[in-house]
Amino acid sequence: MSNPVTVEVTRGNRVESRHRGIAVVVDGEGDLITAVGDIEAPTFPRSACKAMQALPLVESGAADAYGFGNRELALACSSHSGEDAHVETAAAMLARAGRSVETLECGAHWSFDQATLIHQARTLDKPTALHNNCSGKHSGFVCACCHMGFDPKGYVGYDHPLQAEIRAVMADLTGAPLGRDNCGTDGCSIPTYAVPLVSLARGFSKMATGRGLGAARAAASRRLIEACMAEPFYVAGTKRLCTKLMQVAPGRIFAKTGAEGVFCALIPETGVSIAVKCEDGSARAAEAMVAALLARQFDKDSAEEAALLAMANHAMRNWNGLHVGDVRVTDALFS
Amino acid sequence: MSNPVTVEVTRGNRVESRHRGIAVVVDGEGDLITAVGDIEAPTFPRSACKAMQALPLVESGAADAYGFGNRELALACSSHSGEDAHVETAAAMLARAGRSVETLECGAHWSFDQATLIHQARTLDKPTALHNNCSGKHSGFVCACCHMGFDPKGYVGYDHPLQAEIRAVMADLTGAPLGRDNCGTDGCSIPTYAVPLVSLARGFSKMATGRGLGAARAAASRRLIEACMAEPFYVAGTKRLCTKLMQVAPGRIFAKTGAEGVFCALIPETGVSIAVKCEDGSARAAEAMVAALLARQFDKDSAEEAALLAMANHAMRNWNGLHVGDVRVTDALFS
Repeated sequence: MSNPVTVEVTRGNRVESRHRGIAVVVDGEGDLITAVGDIEAPTFPRSACKAMQALPLVESGAADAYGFGNRELALACSSHSGEDAHVETAAAMLARAGRSVETLECGAHWSFDQATLIHQARTLDKPTALHNNCSGKHSGFVCACCHMGFDPKGYVGYDHPLQAEIRAVMADLTGAPLGRDNCGTDGCSIPTYAVPLVSLARGFSKMATGRGLGAARAAASRRLIEACMAEPFYVAGTKRLCTKLMQVAPGRIFAKTGAEGVFCALIPETGVSIAVKCEDGSARAAEAMVAALLARQFDKDSAEEAALLAMANHAMRNWNGLHVGDVRVTDALFS
Repeated sequence: MSNPVTVEVTRGNRVESRHRGIAVVVDGEGDLITAVGDIEAPTFPRSACKAMQALPLVESGAADAYGFGNRELALACSSHSGEDAHVETAAAMLARAGRSVETLECGAHWSFDQATLIHQARTLDKPTALHNNCSGKHSGFVCACCHMGFDPKGYVGYDHPLQAEIRAVMADLTGAPLGRDNCGTDGCSIPTYAVPLVSLARGFSKMATGRGLGAARAAASRRLIEACMAEPFYVAGTKRLCTKLMQVAPGRIFAKTGAEGVFCALIPETGVSIAVKCEDGSARAAEAMVAALLARQFDKDSAEEAALLAMANHAMRNWNGLHVGDVRVTDALFS
């Protein structure tokens, strides 16, 4: 099926570029509220599912054993910008398990955030794996391995026992089969599994409500979501949309982006869960879609609705600050 | 009409993201060879038409008066990365007209190229308008104004006589009307006009062949195209696709990118001209499309074809260098 145009980018009085999207909203029972495009198409969640992947860290008791609070748990669910506080917290997590940057298998990269990259360029010779946007998740993986008695070496591999644990957790949450057939390799080298977008949304809804989960998994899910909402800077960083969305309504919105145009969000008090995928992998379109769908979860004319709509539909300015066009969601997003 | 998927991005054994595209190839007579998607839809050429916008600089005699060679002319047609040689050449161009960075009205930004940005962060407090990717074009504009007796102040404005000159040149080349109705403001603050992609392709074909142009315009067009092909680094920069495409077959390929997924290319010896626009504005898709269409212009199994196809269809590697997926063009691009 052809996915509809859900986001337009204008210039002058014309539409310059168009993004097609898939979007699904489910309620606390997992029932569909909104379905746009092919919500059954297998979709790699990429980093949007990091809170699911962090469950073994909590369920195993590792997080308690190493004394992790909200910041460490939020960082374990993060795609951070590599700001100093992110890097220092990841290093501290590893130190609790007696490990260091050498144990990380995520690879190294400079920050994707321009201001942070400039700071890094001025203070570093080159980045390490601690600066990788996934270093919090990987530090959590290493800590889970150490506590569970797994040798962390090779922890990114499909056959490592930690990845088997994560597969079991994600299959339980999403209800979708995960195996070699729908497996790809993520940017940080761990497996990522293509599942229907609606299954991903239902999995996050379960994390909020605990519906159908064992007591330990339900409690761990709630703890991770609450940690992210309590420390939104540690989930992303300065000026990042995940952070800003969660700051709109503290304790009432969870949000997490993934590469290639994926974005998930959750209203924990209702269990309403949103998942979007931009067909072309665009982040700007995924951001507009998730913000617009979140806005619908707040009262009409409320401050929260206004703040979220301002993130969904916004002006684009050029290097001289002139208003040259807009990013805006279309009515097709609400069909 | 719905534009077809022309580029796929895979991960594992799945297609992760899809790009829809418009593509047109015309021969030296301007007749259609390939037409994919809505080639009549008005499309902002953005920076892809900089060689057209540089014509008044040459036609007015300014380029000769200021002693500009291939490097300066290539820079006048460029979207450069802000590498030191680009910045120094733009400053030298302005100096020939007795002007300096203060005359530029393009605004300032850090380099879009990561390696250059790191270098800039380590050597600059902040970038100036000379570092703007459009500073070569703007320096050319300022020089054209000074030579033609126009006060450069306000040269980016729709009503400035330089912009009126550029409108006339572009209308002559593209055969499309240009006015306030199809005008937007570009990133560097000058007007950009939405014209059918096929008109843009025909305009470049005319620049190569001179067909239907006055002798002075035909000569100036040829001179600018040849300058870009002689100095491809000055059209873009290290590792940039415009530069690499022109290096594949020195003197036989002209190529120029524009924002929001536009790319134009030309085979001057035949007048064959290619223009593509990715519907969603993606650069990676526009790059794949233009490289694949250029490859068809060279002999089967030639080194040039192989080099171009390797730019069109290529592996994506993650931070550990693992092959995680591919960018590849689809058969729809050749329908």
